[in-house]
Amino acid sequence: MSTSNDLYAVADFCLIPMGTGEPSVAGYIAECQRILEKSGLKYKMHGYGTNLEGPWSEVTKAIHDCHLAVHAQGAPRIATDIRIGTRTDREIAPGTGNEAKVKRVEDILSK
Amino acid sequence: MSTSNDLYAVADFCLIPMGTGEPSVAGYIAECQRILEKSGLKYKMHGYGTNLEGPWSEVTKAIHDCHLAVHAQGAPRIATDIRIGTRTDREIAPGTGNEAKVKRVEDILSK
Amino acid sequence: MSTSNDLYAVADFCLIPMGTGEPSVAGYIAECQRILEKSGLKYKMHGYGTNLEGPWSEVTKAIHDCHLAVHAQGAPRIATDIRIGTRTDREIAPGTGNEAKVKRVEDILSK
Amino acid sequence: MSTSNDLYAVADFCLIPMGTGEPSVAGYIAECQRILEKSGLKYKMHGYGTNLEGPWSEVTKAIHDCHLAVHAQGAPRIATDIRIGTRTDREIAPGTGNEAKVKRVEDILSK
Repeated sequence: MSTSNDLYAVADFCLIPMGTGEPSVAGYIAECQRILEKSGLKYKMHGYGTNLEGPWSEVTKAIHDCHLAVHAQGAPRIATDIRIGTRTDREIAPGTGNEAKVKRVEDILSK
Repeated sequence: MSTSNDLYAVADFCLIPMGTGEPSVAGYIAECQRILEKSGLKYKMHGYGTNLEGPWSEVTKAIHDCHLAVHAQGAPRIATDIRIGTRTDREIAPGTGNEAKVKRVEDILSK
Repeated sequence: MSTSNDLYAVADFCLIPMGTGEPSVAGYIAECQRILEKSGLKYKMHGYGTNLEGPWSEVTKAIHDCHLAVHAQGAPRIATDIRIGTRTDREIAPGTGNEAKVKRVEDILSK
Repeated sequence: MSTSNDLYAVADFCLIPMGTGEPSVAGYIAECQRILEKSGLKYKMHGYGTNLEGPWSEVTKAIHDCHLAVHAQGAPRIATDIRIGTRTDREIAPGTGNEAKVKRVEDILSK
């Protein structure tokens, strides 16, 4: 679905299955990681979400497909929080946006 | 971009222009409201974001187009927080999802 | 818990009960509204969260007390998304921060 | 400020300086990492935020103190997104909440 004016998006999302009857959600989150792997996008799980980046339409479609998969696993409702950023002041080489942000901070701290 | 498996999304987003040189962002948010008006989707601004709902692909495209417009106004970087929910246990009549949630809570409180 | 350097916080939060066995959460959100009413802080529910503002320590304590109350109602796990803002360029009269942001945007749109 | 009913909070936050005149924010985020180091809480930066956990009052106070420090560095306005979770179904050993969540998902994926 990428188009000529599709902004490059550096994102992070936290998906929360609701109405599942049990507090543990690790099985649902594992299924999301499988969906992201198939998406071809750069992603990396952390303790409270997953970093994800790529063309805006592909990033939001990948999260949509995580919802589809988690519903298919039995969750009747899902609430997701997405942080998504774009910028026009510099070009981001595909797949390097989130890592580069961490590196810039670490470089400052190591001085 | 809606497809047969495009989930209906009830959402809310808060767009933050960065690197703008002045703390006020009302002009950028006003521009977003104009973009949302053109989208044809149901939306409603509140004190810390804007409720928005419709097919997932249209909701995320509308937010993308807000980024495009705010970049065009001069903001070199934008960070947006999106809350987005889907459910398969009930059908949501288009445009009624966010309002219905408020009404259900108010009905309980008024008892 | 307010102290001399307690920043004034304009906030919004969306609380999600997890592991509840049913997708509807209106009863839990109604309980949160009762807790907020007791807090004495300015708050206003919308379709995907609740605007809330006051001294930072009181705002975050009120959300904590919503968690306590929702756990007491039986939810074994809760995930909340909070948007919280502070500023030093202008003084915010208590209780006016979120409303003023909406008004500034509406004033621009009505021109 | 911890009290007997202070819930243990597993959290993540993304702090956004506004009105800074330049899109890069790495210097501000580095300052936040120094504040977190002084807090004594367990934290870990990733590409779009920082995992943080501990007693609720200490977690929210640490984020408040990041705001204070970033204002002191010259940012006139700050908008932060916080994800914060609590649970009563299991005891979380201090500092292990976010790591344990990642491990449970990785264990499922490695089967």
